[in-house]
Amino acid sequence: MTRVVKKFGGTSVADLERIRSVAARVKHAHDAGEEVVVVVSAMAGVTNQLVDYCVKMAPLHDAREYDTIVATGEQVTAGLTAIALQELGVPARSWLGWQIQLHTDSAHGKARISGIDREALDQRLRQGEVPVIAGFQGIGSDNRLTTLGRGGSDTTAVAIAAALQADRCDIYTDVDGVYTTDPRIVSRARKLEKITFEEMLEMASVGAKVLQTRAVELAMKYGVRMQVLSSFDDSPGTFVVGEDEILEHELVSGVTYSRDEAKITLLRVADRPGIAAGIFGPLADASINVDMIVQNISAEGDTTDITFTVSKSDLERARAVIEASRETITYARLLSDPNVVKVSVIGVGMRSHAGIASKMFHTLAEKGINIQVISTSEIKVSVLIDEAYTELAVRALHTAYRLDAH
Amino acid sequence: MTRVVKKFGGTSVADLERIRSVAARVKHAHDAGEEVVVVVSAMAGVTNQLVDYCVKMAPLHDAREYDTIVATGEQVTAGLTAIALQELGVPARSWLGWQIQLHTDSAHGKARISGIDREALDQRLRQGEVPVIAGFQGIGSDNRLTTLGRGGSDTTAVAIAAALQADRCDIYTDVDGVYTTDPRIVSRARKLEKITFEEMLEMASVGAKVLQTRAVELAMKYGVRMQVLSSFDDSPGTFVVGEDEILEHELVSGVTYSRDEAKITLLRVADRPGIAAGIFGPLADASINVDMIVQNISAEGDTTDITFTVSKSDLERARAVIEASRETITYARLLSDPNVVKVSVIGVGMRSHAGIASKMFHTLAEKGINIQVISTSEIKVSVLIDEAYTELAVRALHTAYRLDAH
Repeated sequence: MTRVVKKFGGTSVADLERIRSVAARVKHAHDAGEEVVVVVSAMAGVTNQLVDYCVKMAPLHDAREYDTIVATGEQVTAGLTAIALQELGVPARSWLGWQIQLHTDSAHGKARISGIDREALDQRLRQGEVPVIAGFQGIGSDNRLTTLGRGGSDTTAVAIAAALQADRCDIYTDVDGVYTTDPRIVSRARKLEKITFEEMLEMASVGAKVLQTRAVELAMKYGVRMQVLSSFDDSPGTFVVGEDEILEHELVSGVTYSRDEAKITLLRVADRPGIAAGIFGPLADASINVDMIVQNISAEGDTTDITFTVSKSDLERARAVIEASRETITYARLLSDPNVVKVSVIGVGMRSHAGIASKMFHTLAEKGINIQVISTSEIKVSVLIDEAYTELAVRALHTAYRLDAH
Repeated sequence: MTRVVKKFGGTSVADLERIRSVAARVKHAHDAGEEVVVVVSAMAGVTNQLVDYCVKMAPLHDAREYDTIVATGEQVTAGLTAIALQELGVPARSWLGWQIQLHTDSAHGKARISGIDREALDQRLRQGEVPVIAGFQGIGSDNRLTTLGRGGSDTTAVAIAAALQADRCDIYTDVDGVYTTDPRIVSRARKLEKITFEEMLEMASVGAKVLQTRAVELAMKYGVRMQVLSSFDDSPGTFVVGEDEILEHELVSGVTYSRDEAKITLLRVADRPGIAAGIFGPLADASINVDMIVQNISAEGDTTDITFTVSKSDLERARAVIEASRETITYARLLSDPNVVKVSVIGVGMRSHAGIASKMFHTLAEKGINIQVISTSEIKVSVLIDEAYTELAVRALHTAYRLDAH
């Protein structure tokens, strides 16, 4: 007996008609003899409305009340989906976070799952009933409702799949899979049949917002096979799986880009021990995430130039923090540039193959694109370039790594 | 220490601004040293929207899912009200039905309360915290959400007041009290300072929809003093109390009317034992409520005329049920008339005073109003008259019983 968790996001349950078509899809799997667990998000727009209520009532509101309020969105969808399934003759019932004892810590608004009572669900599944679980919500150690952070229903689905030892966790969304790059930029982008958890995590972290990062981490930890697919058509999606499932790795699986970057350069910083801590400590204290960091080799021995990137929205705050610390960080000038983009090539294949980074640099050089900063991880090479060259760079790299569809 | 339960209905919490003014009202009582428990309804319109979703998804839907869905309305208001109170510096938290273990039977959609865990609330109250309770909802024996039927938040408030031995249960609504009659018809209608539970129940049953009937029954059973008052101004409301609290009873406390009446007359029904059962049994089986019933004394010994009233919306169905039973109920003709109104005078004083009914008949006769049917209870006299005379009759009776404001 195949056991599958199917998670439907906000656009997939946007209205009653869409919920009916979700029910039809679930019935199809149920009729084929699968044990199906459904996890649903709030109807599109509902969570935003509820968050808006909270913010308007008090910009700094009690996170426990926020959770009580926003958790209602998924509760409504779960009930309606159960009714829609029953209408099609499929035995179904809704389950709320506290009813399946989906325990979390008490970090309201961004809680982490600590355990699930699988017994009740397991028993219902064996009886042929379809549990419809309200995603995104749990119960904290204080016996109050918690939520898992935006996109948290993905995490609910993976956690349920892990607890019930499901064969697969299908994530239905408004895109039909994970692509080699953004199809809006590269018309010959290809849908990937499979991708590894590690690659998916790198994709997510550089801007491909298909899956919540924590959901992928959890799936990797518990070996839950995921599939990303569309609830709007019937084409197969992209499987997100362990490396062992992919026999022949592509050297590069995808080319991604992130426009949410801004560059700061400090010229002629006094080159002495502790200077990096002097710069990045105050930024961390101000909750500003620093991504790429480059320190030039000191030419004359007593000063150096340091370049780093922050999120575009943090640029002004970052400048202010640095300038406020000018007494401790001695530097000649602060330059900043919001017109940059980070382009990355990602692939687990590069672990065992040399020359991936070198091909990237050559390709960009051929197009006359100047590389401002480079950073690498085991399965990713990222470069910072002038934002004006985004499309040119992405297309050239997509072709160079033979990712174009035929 | 005075302990008060304050319940706010849908129009009182219609939007964020109204919820803020509810919070200000609660803060006022809290600052004055009262222990306050708040019970809230869904924001006006929300419950209708949720019910509409259920009905559109399936006209005959699972009542357990219905309850899961509609209970979210009160959940949102409870959270927002708690935030609004915190903003004013009042310690507050929301409580859902399952969190206070408000147990009900499992009659989903119209559940009855069986018990409440008062410990947690009692402790918080003593610490000066304001519990904000989502009305209308509970938890059934199946560990699923239940709801108490439309207007059920009144019942929640009274049940909480009884469990916590509160000194008073204030029901805030969009009217500022209970009137001697409908002020839209009689400009000299007076707001009552006090009314007994029994009178309130009779008022409610004949059309004055200020309080849910079950809430009044529960208040009477447990001796909970209620007050009906407006959340839109600061005038004192009407107290609903036990008879012992009212020293000098008015003979008549109010004149009410109900337009939702239709009359059916069966001419020349065979007058033999079992004939009433033959008529009213099939109507009961069809869930049609029959109100007033009059059987004329048989003139010739073998036939009689029977007149009764049903709700206007049931008239056509009632005719069909009677006509379908024509083989067992032998009658000459069926007459029906939807253009009737039931006018009632209500007052516990009439228990100990004769002449109340007689004054009613005289007053109507003086105005040339024909009485079609009469029915009486211990504290109420009702007559059925031509609907065209509604205002004339109500005004005349209001004056006759000296209810007009000076």
